[in-house]
Amino acid sequence: MTTGVWLIGARGSVAVTSMVGATALRAGLAEPLGCVTELPALASRAVPGLGELVFGGHDISDITLEKKVEDLVAAGVLPAGPAAAVADQLPALQRELRPVPTAATQLEVARLIAEDIDDFRRRRGLERVVVVNVSSTEPAAAPHPAHSDLASLEEALASSGVVLPPSSLYAYAAFTAGCAYVDFTPSTGTRLPALRELASQTGLPYAGHDGKTGETLVKSVLAPMFAMRNLRVRTWAGTNLLGGGDGANLADPAANAAKAGSKQRVLAETLGYQPQGSSHIEYVDDIGDFKTAWDLITFSGFLGTRMRMEFSWHGCDSALAAPLILDLARLTAAAHAAGRSGPLTDLAFFFKDPIGEVPHALPDQWARLVNFVRGLDGAA
Amino acid sequence: MTTGVWLIGARGSVAVTSMVGATALRAGLAEPLGCVTELPALASRAVPGLGELVFGGHDISDITLEKKVEDLVAAGVLPAGPAAAVADQLPALQRELRPVPTAATQLEVARLIAEDIDDFRRRRGLERVVVVNVSSTEPAAAPHPAHSDLASLEEALASSGVVLPPSSLYAYAAFTAGCAYVDFTPSTGTRLPALRELASQTGLPYAGHDGKTGETLVKSVLAPMFAMRNLRVRTWAGTNLLGGGDGANLADPAANAAKAGSKQRVLAETLGYQPQGSSHIEYVDDIGDFKTAWDLITFSGFLGTRMRMEFSWHGCDSALAAPLILDLARLTAAAHAAGRSGPLTDLAFFFKDPIGEVPHALPDQWARLVNFVRGLDGAA
Amino acid sequence: MTTGVWLIGARGSVAVTSMVGATALRAGLAEPLGCVTELPALASRAVPGLGELVFGGHDISDITLEKKVEDLVAAGVLPAGPAAAVADQLPALQRELRPVPTAATQLEVARLIAEDIDDFRRRRGLERVVVVNVSSTEPAAAPHPAHSDLASLEEALASSGVVLPPSSLYAYAAFTAGCAYVDFTPSTGTRLPALRELASQTGLPYAGHDGKTGETLVKSVLAPMFAMRNLRVRTWAGTNLLGGGDGANLADPAANAAKAGSKQRVLAETLGYQPQGSSHIEYVDDIGDFKTAWDLITFSGFLGTRMRMEFSWHGCDSALAAPLILDLARLTAAAHAAGRSGPLTDLAFFFKDPIGEVPHALPDQWARLVNFVRGLDGAA
Amino acid sequence: MTTGVWLIGARGSVAVTSMVGATALRAGLAEPLGCVTELPALASRAVPGLGELVFGGHDISDITLEKKVEDLVAAGVLPAGPAAAVADQLPALQRELRPVPTAATQLEVARLIAEDIDDFRRRRGLERVVVVNVSSTEPAAAPHPAHSDLASLEEALASSGVVLPPSSLYAYAAFTAGCAYVDFTPSTGTRLPALRELASQTGLPYAGHDGKTGETLVKSVLAPMFAMRNLRVRTWAGTNLLGGGDGANLADPAANAAKAGSKQRVLAETLGYQPQGSSHIEYVDDIGDFKTAWDLITFSGFLGTRMRMEFSWHGCDSALAAPLILDLARLTAAAHAAGRSGPLTDLAFFFKDPIGEVPHALPDQWARLVNFVRGLDGAA
Repeated sequence: MTTGVWLIGARGSVAVTSMVGATALRAGLAEPLGCVTELPALASRAVPGLGELVFGGHDISDITLEKKVEDLVAAGVLPAGPAAAVADQLPALQRELRPVPTAATQLEVARLIAEDIDDFRRRRGLERVVVVNVSSTEPAAAPHPAHSDLASLEEALASSGVVLPPSSLYAYAAFTAGCAYVDFTPSTGTRLPALRELASQTGLPYAGHDGKTGETLVKSVLAPMFAMRNLRVRTWAGTNLLGGGDGANLADPAANAAKAGSKQRVLAETLGYQPQGSSHIEYVDDIGDFKTAWDLITFSGFLGTRMRMEFSWHGCDSALAAPLILDLARLTAAAHAAGRSGPLTDLAFFFKDPIGEVPHALPDQWARLVNFVRGLDGAA
Repeated sequence: MTTGVWLIGARGSVAVTSMVGATALRAGLAEPLGCVTELPALASRAVPGLGELVFGGHDISDITLEKKVEDLVAAGVLPAGPAAAVADQLPALQRELRPVPTAATQLEVARLIAEDIDDFRRRRGLERVVVVNVSSTEPAAAPHPAHSDLASLEEALASSGVVLPPSSLYAYAAFTAGCAYVDFTPSTGTRLPALRELASQTGLPYAGHDGKTGETLVKSVLAPMFAMRNLRVRTWAGTNLLGGGDGANLADPAANAAKAGSKQRVLAETLGYQPQGSSHIEYVDDIGDFKTAWDLITFSGFLGTRMRMEFSWHGCDSALAAPLILDLARLTAAAHAAGRSGPLTDLAFFFKDPIGEVPHALPDQWARLVNFVRGLDGAA
Repeated sequence: MTTGVWLIGARGSVAVTSMVGATALRAGLAEPLGCVTELPALASRAVPGLGELVFGGHDISDITLEKKVEDLVAAGVLPAGPAAAVADQLPALQRELRPVPTAATQLEVARLIAEDIDDFRRRRGLERVVVVNVSSTEPAAAPHPAHSDLASLEEALASSGVVLPPSSLYAYAAFTAGCAYVDFTPSTGTRLPALRELASQTGLPYAGHDGKTGETLVKSVLAPMFAMRNLRVRTWAGTNLLGGGDGANLADPAANAAKAGSKQRVLAETLGYQPQGSSHIEYVDDIGDFKTAWDLITFSGFLGTRMRMEFSWHGCDSALAAPLILDLARLTAAAHAAGRSGPLTDLAFFFKDPIGEVPHALPDQWARLVNFVRGLDGAA
Repeated sequence: MTTGVWLIGARGSVAVTSMVGATALRAGLAEPLGCVTELPALASRAVPGLGELVFGGHDISDITLEKKVEDLVAAGVLPAGPAAAVADQLPALQRELRPVPTAATQLEVARLIAEDIDDFRRRRGLERVVVVNVSSTEPAAAPHPAHSDLASLEEALASSGVVLPPSSLYAYAAFTAGCAYVDFTPSTGTRLPALRELASQTGLPYAGHDGKTGETLVKSVLAPMFAMRNLRVRTWAGTNLLGGGDGANLADPAANAAKAGSKQRVLAETLGYQPQGSSHIEYVDDIGDFKTAWDLITFSGFLGTRMRMEFSWHGCDSALAAPLILDLARLTAAAHAAGRSGPLTDLAFFFKDPIGEVPHALPDQWARLVNFVRGLDGAA
């Protein structure tokens, strides 16, 4: 079941780590660490294999893959050995990357995007393509009356103004091209009634938002621990220091606010109340891709005794995200193949801000994911 | 359903915090934080209420409860307000405490222990009594041929030598008195074939070992997180600094070894392999009951990228343990009432080193606990 | 040498901890921990004893000392024992506290402030009074042309507008009352040419700014360590979580900016360059007076090898500040007695943002402090 | 002033990092980070330049420098770029490395060692040679009556038994060869009366013990900070996790004890009392050369208020040690040239367990070092 993975932001750190990593894994150069779908508990006939993924994508940058890989090796994100071993395959990967089209109207841009994807699918003989957004976080989108239904949206897109933020225009283009859509960022993406209407009309599945790779992942197991032991969390305050492209982008207060909000949601959802404290994001260029997060948790136990916990997390964001991109592409493709449509709420395991009324505790999300995969297998 | 809680080590920090705390909760002086059985998910008709618990116990120390409470308030373990409010009930509590009996043979000591417990049950009109071991950790017991079956054991106990360590002699006495037995310490307790034979013969339930109150609790949610994300834990090394009675005792290398072993077991069980590193325990008198644990976890992700996490936990051991003593007494009493016998493996949620082939991941233990309580309700 | 200590913000946590603490120390109820002038290396005939300090002050709040002490005991800032032991002296302390005067012009307010201080000095028969600002941090003051010289200032003060921020109006009043002035906050205080002209004219000493009690104290020894070892600090980023009155105040972005700036200055001054990263302050009511600061330091060593250090500091701000208030009052009084005037740059040891071209490394500041005290002794 | 640096343990991580690093610095491939003698404050005509150092040494291992450099690059200790750039100079470096001689008596072994060093000096036309011990930590040496004076020692060495541990035999050989001796390890080295007699007789200087590279370095600035602020340190407990050759060696309890003792000495010396807690060392192979140390410090301030600090240090031991080896060789050579003999107590800045009655606070040690260098310049 050859499956296309069309990456928005295809020359960024996460995308390139995904493509190079998949190539290296296929060549047996490393164990599939970080790949959830490779765990025995999720083994499935219905899910396409790592070797069946074919990559393409759009990017506004024109950095070469050679240069990007060199940068990622220097930054310690990609190990030198596997990177060198797959160097000869970079030109072929690069030939499937396209610049973001421009046109007089957003409708025309969407048509050109869909055309690029469709061309990719036909040329490579793919059964289906999953579009995955791994571009930089956008500021919250300006509301627009045309967001509320599909007819108004299509009419507005045909005019010359900006109606949709890029993440949503891509979702629109993906659906019109008959592709499933995954949003790994906190951007708007499919979160507009008009787009959900389109997904429903076209019978396509989608997933999101905001990949859960570090501090929030830890929160999603620690917060349930406090809840299960009836310990009252009073304060949960954290700081995230990160550099790299995403870091610079999040230093923008608007983008930052979106992200910081989605990072605290897990607490209210798993504890049943919102502790004091917030999640602060600070851009420090020197930190690069190796994000350092520090959290302080104060809590009360028996008779009100006050206690505390601190943790610090030093994780390589791209290395944590890249295998999840592969997982999401594979699972979403399998869901598409099985005829699933609408929001894939069973993929909440992967997201900071999952769609729908879903559990936020990681173990509950895991249980749903295991069931989901079994369901696909049953259908296959 | 009035239920007796017979505490071994009844004048120690954990026991006194349990008794004073239960008294304060009953009087509405504090919320039942830390009490797992008070969570809505575990609400049950089958489980005796906090108000139905009656306390007694043995101790080799003769410190008065007044003095012990004063010490616990000074150390910040018990809050001054509730402690003062229940001061007038300390004499009544103290009247139910007994010195550990002495006699020429261990069989005779066991008989005297059982007599004390039986007298407590009759005088207070209790439906049943749960014996809970919260005394200091013992060194590993010397093997003895009489441990292997009940007949040999009873014969050997009648001689003048030392056959059983105290925790096991208490288990023997509890079973002969018709009481369920809970071991909150890593000591030998019921872990001898002869005692399991006795439990089976008498149809009594038991639970253990070693209450999970701090670092191991955190491990039991973090280790599954790494496993669910297919991240390879390379090193998990930790240090525990603690003072207080238990700290001094654990400074003894023999007791320390027992504890440190049970603290790492969760890793092998939830990860499927044993990472490098060990769990070190150091006695620091000044730290008192507020244990500080620090753990370093190094792990590998996608393509082998190396990452790390550190946490420090600053918890009041007695305040974390005391509500679990109340939970265990209530749940074990309910199991006894429902006719359950043998090891209560569904109580693994509470223990570092649970009996039986049980899950070590906290969420799985929680799921079993919820089912267990529902089962008791069905039986009630 | 009876010395008055006139506290601005006299009912706040720091002031009350200072007054209650001095009273308890005088009564021999505790060792003088935290009091730098009590160290043998600073023993001096020229410095007034703890027993020679007499307290008074202004505050806009009218909370009683009894209530404030009760709050500080509940918050764990003041220990219950000493607080209870000096309870009978609170009414006498309280009788010396005055509301902040109001009037039609700032000149008139300053006159009334000076009158209060003068009245205190005469009634209590004090040789001199040191005015110490421990009130909340102000936002940066709006520039005003009258700040540049004393004549313009006094003319402008006589009009009805707001010319000086409170900290500077207090400095003006202190100097006109013949008193030395210490600014323990990052507020403007004496940092205006007109006020320095007045200090010079009146021959009075002053000191400041912003007491160094936690994270910056640690920085002032760690940054020189990196410099002495020729290690290049790349990032120094920190987060301060604090509650209490000062915390709420610092949540105001304007006040926060002043403070955060003064917290990073030590790095540029001791390293010779400014590393990346900033110092973030977040108000978390629950944390109260026990501030938690966390800092990440990344650095390069031999051949560029990248390394890192993290620290967290959990300090009680008022308990760290209060003894320094006593030190500063005693040292400034001794300087005044010895005829010193102008900025006391030798007191840089106590401040985050010391006046003048002074060392920022703590050991160098210590050496200057020791010399300063020896100089006073020589003069005495 | 060409100066020989004769390394004991010359194929170990520290020695090889020193030699490769000096070669790379000489070639202008990196800034001299970590090199203390390159700081402007220590600039001196009397101290030989980095370019004037010539390396040789002994090792019991026969690993090639090529292989060792490859391992150090893989471990992240040596950066790949500079390592590759100096690869062509490794054969020349290697030609100066010798196996440790063997013979029937220790006297004969010492003679052969001295011969190797002397041959190195003559062939390379060196003005002098400094012998530096960077081999693995030894267990504490067994006492021997011949340690007490030189005559007895030389007589005993001529017999067939083991009289001196290796570090001391090397010191003996160095002195007889007319060379200064530096001990960068906690081993016995010159710490025997007979050897000090020999140093005195030959008029040679020596320095030691145990390079201060990580946790103890931090202690030597934090402990004085607490002292200068009159804060009472109650507990200072730490854990060191490290792998690599030195780590494996320190897992041996005997070697560990020597090291752990020297790590706490700084506390008693700078605080004036010994806080509770100890310094624990644990070998974790996976950690490699990037040691992680974690320390907990609890302290009391004003009126006894209890506070705490934690730090973790993640440093590359070899990268921290290597530049200090270069510094010590250069400074000791300059001292030798200036006619200094006996213990160089002014080099305490570099050591965990410095010789003599010297300050243990880093800033005081720095001041002595600066004076020492100025003195050498005056003499030059």
